[in-house]
Amino acid sequence: MEIQKLLEEFEACEKAKFALENASGIIYYDGNTVAPKKSAAVRGEILGELSRMSYELTSSPEAVERLKALNEAKDSLDPLMRRRIELLTREFEEIACIPVDEYVEFVKLQTTAMDVWKEAKEKNDYALFEPYLKKMFATMKRFALLRRPDCDPYETLLDGFEKGLTVKTCDNFFACLKERLVPLAAKAAEKSRATDDSAITCAYPVELQREFSDFLMDTIGLDRDRCILGETEHPFTTDFTKYDVRITTHYYENMPAASMYSVIHEGGHALYELGIADELTETNVGGGVSMAIHESQSRFYENIIGRSKAFCELIFPWMKAKFAPRLDAETPESFWKMVTKVEPSLKRTEADEVTYCLHVMVRYELEKRLIAGDLDTKDLPAEWNRLYKEYLGIDVPSDSEGVLQDMHWAGADIGYFPSYAIGSAYGAQYLREMMKEFDVWECVRSGNIAKINAWFENKIWRFGKMKDPGELFESICGPLDPTVFTDYLEEKYC
Amino acid sequence: MEIQKLLEEFEACEKAKFALENASGIIYYDGNTVAPKKSAAVRGEILGELSRMSYELTSSPEAVERLKALNEAKDSLDPLMRRRIELLTREFEEIACIPVDEYVEFVKLQTTAMDVWKEAKEKNDYALFEPYLKKMFATMKRFALLRRPDCDPYETLLDGFEKGLTVKTCDNFFACLKERLVPLAAKAAEKSRATDDSAITCAYPVELQREFSDFLMDTIGLDRDRCILGETEHPFTTDFTKYDVRITTHYYENMPAASMYSVIHEGGHALYELGIADELTETNVGGGVSMAIHESQSRFYENIIGRSKAFCELIFPWMKAKFAPRLDAETPESFWKMVTKVEPSLKRTEADEVTYCLHVMVRYELEKRLIAGDLDTKDLPAEWNRLYKEYLGIDVPSDSEGVLQDMHWAGADIGYFPSYAIGSAYGAQYLREMMKEFDVWECVRSGNIAKINAWFENKIWRFGKMKDPGELFESICGPLDPTVFTDYLEEKYC
Repeated sequence: MEIQKLLEEFEACEKAKFALENASGIIYYDGNTVAPKKSAAVRGEILGELSRMSYELTSSPEAVERLKALNEAKDSLDPLMRRRIELLTREFEEIACIPVDEYVEFVKLQTTAMDVWKEAKEKNDYALFEPYLKKMFATMKRFALLRRPDCDPYETLLDGFEKGLTVKTCDNFFACLKERLVPLAAKAAEKSRATDDSAITCAYPVELQREFSDFLMDTIGLDRDRCILGETEHPFTTDFTKYDVRITTHYYENMPAASMYSVIHEGGHALYELGIADELTETNVGGGVSMAIHESQSRFYENIIGRSKAFCELIFPWMKAKFAPRLDAETPESFWKMVTKVEPSLKRTEADEVTYCLHVMVRYELEKRLIAGDLDTKDLPAEWNRLYKEYLGIDVPSDSEGVLQDMHWAGADIGYFPSYAIGSAYGAQYLREMMKEFDVWECVRSGNIAKINAWFENKIWRFGKMKDPGELFESICGPLDPTVFTDYLEEKYC
Repeated sequence: MEIQKLLEEFEACEKAKFALENASGIIYYDGNTVAPKKSAAVRGEILGELSRMSYELTSSPEAVERLKALNEAKDSLDPLMRRRIELLTREFEEIACIPVDEYVEFVKLQTTAMDVWKEAKEKNDYALFEPYLKKMFATMKRFALLRRPDCDPYETLLDGFEKGLTVKTCDNFFACLKERLVPLAAKAAEKSRATDDSAITCAYPVELQREFSDFLMDTIGLDRDRCILGETEHPFTTDFTKYDVRITTHYYENMPAASMYSVIHEGGHALYELGIADELTETNVGGGVSMAIHESQSRFYENIIGRSKAFCELIFPWMKAKFAPRLDAETPESFWKMVTKVEPSLKRTEADEVTYCLHVMVRYELEKRLIAGDLDTKDLPAEWNRLYKEYLGIDVPSDSEGVLQDMHWAGADIGYFPSYAIGSAYGAQYLREMMKEFDVWECVRSGNIAKINAWFENKIWRFGKMKDPGELFESICGPLDPTVFTDYLEEKYC
């Protein structure tokens, strides 16, 4: 068959697959924001059907034959088409080993597990969720072993989120962070013990916080015609195309900083997706390349920008006026001290920049043991609580505030957590590079976030998945070096 | 092939089709409520892809073969399965005559036309919308002629919404209404000229109106775990299954009755869908049977219940307390007079019960002429305005308040409008039947709407599409008799 015909078929198939995945994404977003409570079961069935169709599109004998022929002819194709074929081949190889019925079951499990997790968290009832969590870990382990029978299944899961990431790299990475972070966190916590943050732990009406979200989204330069904000139990970002990105937040009356930093964090994810080059959108290359690169954006905007003195100076006048009289006695400097207060706490999403990676380490260690079979889901809450005591020095009063706090495991995101920490470390290296070119803090202080956005757009966003994550990062910053990150923290917090 | 295998394939195909249609419905709802503005173009492409897949599921050679074999074996099947096959066959025959490319184009046109209509309405710019409207009428006429080459294409469109409805029936129906309604409307308008409705044409904060919506939804017995309320430019109902029905409303600060009756109207549609029997849901029999039957429910709840003295007595105490001091000087009786005020006006959705059918008549006459080719879309606004002057005696000040007010034509719902009037007439006949069994007004007054809901559930809702609409209606009320409706209006308004 001639190449032109093959390419047309490939594009028709990609288009259909794109439509099915886009539909699933909207159904997922709808299910988490507005859908009626009792619609969950049917939604699970529907998502199962859509994923079955998507699966069949790439795994039918004709599709497999076509992909093989295109791979043989790939030297004659342009770089974008070559990459599209390469990524689809990878994806196909990843799912081809999974029997279709098991995959459909898995998608249903994912939806149900998410609903049960929500209920369990509400009721503080880990036992309700435990069977689903057990099944989820068993399923993901089985899938990992089907994919790479001779590999550590946890490493296979890591690789699914971050191509090329190994357990060894993670172990070394966390060992380095632990060595530097434990004393650093103690020192920083001691230093900020005297910080009184009562001005941002009193009642901030949700209606005002919603206005604050709008202000923040405008401040960091999100195009509101292409990006909306919803409200969910746990904040997340869903991207469909560069013309439709959704972020969510959760408002807590007495913790305005919680939603503030969720909006900036998810806003960082959104900026990445909104900045993909036009020619990549609606192809399988048109999206963020990996979880760590994605988190490196969200954590950069949240912490390196959002928790800088310059950013506090930028937004403080708006806050003081809108939230009056709550901040009347404060200054940008005192506000900055509050949002950079270091204090071991229960929740990852609300953790300070220094102890944050300790939260990730707990999850890394536990999920690795769960996959290895060294830990049973029944014993998970006790182990969770033990590690929180050991690493963060605190007691976990309930599973809702402990092991049930994150949606990731319910949503099959096992092996995802390390990317948060690696992404944070990447951020410090971006900052160092950026500083060689312009004064980042002057830009932030004057509200010229657009300059920072342009830097990222040029170096990261526009490429979508054209480059693998390691290649992309090293082309900008050289090899990963966690000491750049710990140096950054040391300078900022000690 | 043995029958069991055929049935399994049929069910697998029905399930896939259900998933695709459900996905399209959610994307449509999402697009009308929360999606970012610039997502419209991609959404159109996605809906086009999903409908192409759905189309191929029923029109592939194997599917056609299967349907033929099942039709031959249908005497051996249970009534539900027989009906599922019958309805799919009908649907297939309706679309089989349309080339797939044209159908995909049509779905895209529908999405774009809807977006352009919104913009045109906002900007009062009919010229912006006119090319899309022209294309929509041409497309629908072409489809009608492809379906039934020897029939009046407008009658084919009517039949698409209401199986068996003819132009002759409609002409006779509207002639009868016109004869009785013109003097009746004049008399009723004269009688209510003195009614002062300033107490419900002042500012009612949207936040309070939202609470009112919740109260109304609870009052008419909508299960909030299966039914949500959204906000859109023009209210509508979308049903996915009996576990997920969405209604929408639009709040106008100075017209609380507008949203009030939208909620009750759409709530009537929702009650119908929520009341479908369990065994029908997720099959192609699991939905309301026709537009007139659907409108007979929504218009019954809106007008016959919602605009009754008894209903005003029921809800007035809540309103008086919540909306204080706006209704302090009013009584249930004076409130009832306000919401039954007869006055020729511009907008169909806000028209009183008596003049409402005159609005429908304008649309009926115009769409019939547009399809016949006796009227060009370029001349439509002038004709619209002329008929509003002739039938309702009023001048139309802008196209936004005139020809651009309804979304129906943008959404391809041509031939739909008559169902509103026929549905209204059906309602009066239900009331007469219901009154033979129990005192409807006593039920309403005491808040026992459940008794009315149970009557409908038993006689209409649970059947879904098991019976054709004419058969269903006649089994309850005998033949359609518009004089029952005009008698009802005469008694209530004169």
